[in-house]
Amino acid sequence: MREAYREQLDGITEGLVEMSRLAGTAMGRASTALLDADLTLAESVIAADDAVDELYERIEQQAFDLLALQQPVAGDLRAVVAALRISATLERMGDLAEHVAGVARRRYPASVVPPELRGTLLEMSQVAERIVQKAGSVIASQDVETALELEADDDRMDDLHRKLFTVMLDKDWKHGVETAVDISLVGRYYERYADHGVSVARRVVYLVTGEKFEDVLQRQE
Amino acid sequence: MREAYREQLDGITEGLVEMSRLAGTAMGRASTALLDADLTLAESVIAADDAVDELYERIEQQAFDLLALQQPVAGDLRAVVAALRISATLERMGDLAEHVAGVARRRYPASVVPPELRGTLLEMSQVAERIVQKAGSVIASQDVETALELEADDDRMDDLHRKLFTVMLDKDWKHGVETAVDISLVGRYYERYADHGVSVARRVVYLVTGEKFEDVLQRQE
Repeated sequence: MREAYREQLDGITEGLVEMSRLAGTAMGRASTALLDADLTLAESVIAADDAVDELYERIEQQAFDLLALQQPVAGDLRAVVAALRISATLERMGDLAEHVAGVARRRYPASVVPPELRGTLLEMSQVAERIVQKAGSVIASQDVETALELEADDDRMDDLHRKLFTVMLDKDWKHGVETAVDISLVGRYYERYADHGVSVARRVVYLVTGEKFEDVLQRQE
Repeated sequence: MREAYREQLDGITEGLVEMSRLAGTAMGRASTALLDADLTLAESVIAADDAVDELYERIEQQAFDLLALQQPVAGDLRAVVAALRISATLERMGDLAEHVAGVARRRYPASVVPPELRGTLLEMSQVAERIVQKAGSVIASQDVETALELEADDDRMDDLHRKLFTVMLDKDWKHGVETAVDISLVGRYYERYADHGVSVARRVVYLVTGEKFEDVLQRQE
């Protein structure tokens, strides 16, 4: 039974890594659609979200089968419960990428992105992709060191998010209300995406070490 | 074992109902804080979110214990997996209420809410409370009829959400960029809150009937 359990859990883990890859590709493409006002790309991101949702349902079914057939306990059971949580988080990350693409689509052929925010949004998209990539690698390798790096990436995302607001709320802002509203929503999507990525890593750290993220971080300082 | 299982599952269900109650109270109070620019109330909502998070962790532990000790299969197992999902959704609803309170706090002593949007936001808060109340009652009673009602409530929320944008993007909007940004975020929080409430009901319907929400709805039409 132990070996069957291991095989089934590996299958679930592979599904989670694949989900993180899809959520990463989606955010990368959504960001390009946003920055380049590319309607076709935006629509392809929106259509591709179904694949994330299907994978999510498949993982839940796999977890269900594993619980029913193997009846794992202790650490084994904890890993399955964590996988359920992580799949839900990755599914939401896919949704957030879809939302970014949705803003690009809604404003097409206009661009949502004013020149003075282009650099900030580009970096937000890069940080988002870095975070999901690390999250995927943490799921695959259970590498606690990489997980801890995500905290700094998330801080960077928060700085960039704040910067958006500083620019939009400046008296020299000349791009009007609609652009400000769209940018504030897009900013929120990136910021949430990053948070979710970190929460995936937190789950893995807790699973591997039995300790909270903050405690592991603190001990390392 | 069957009776022990039933008792433990009832304990989890009670926890979920309590979470929905807390998430509802939080959104009700956050809405008042927003509409009345009440700092003390906003801060009390933010402080109270810890209780939701603790309950969320307790439910996960209870589910874990139940899985480990009772090793349920089939429908019993499905109920526990659904409870895990529902608790995660209710936790996010609590977060969204906290975010609404956060906007009220950030803008204090100014009010975020311009007179012409007061009615719309008030109704959004009422729909949000109705939805969470029904979601709680669906969890407690597994009442499919009430679950199906939520679809109409969610449609109403979407209409109100769209109305916010119509007003903000009108050329006569005179409340500036900062207010528009805040309102668009608050609008998003209500809309997400409603969606999450509906997804709780969907889970219960699927659990009870083995069918997707849409299919049950369609058959009734």
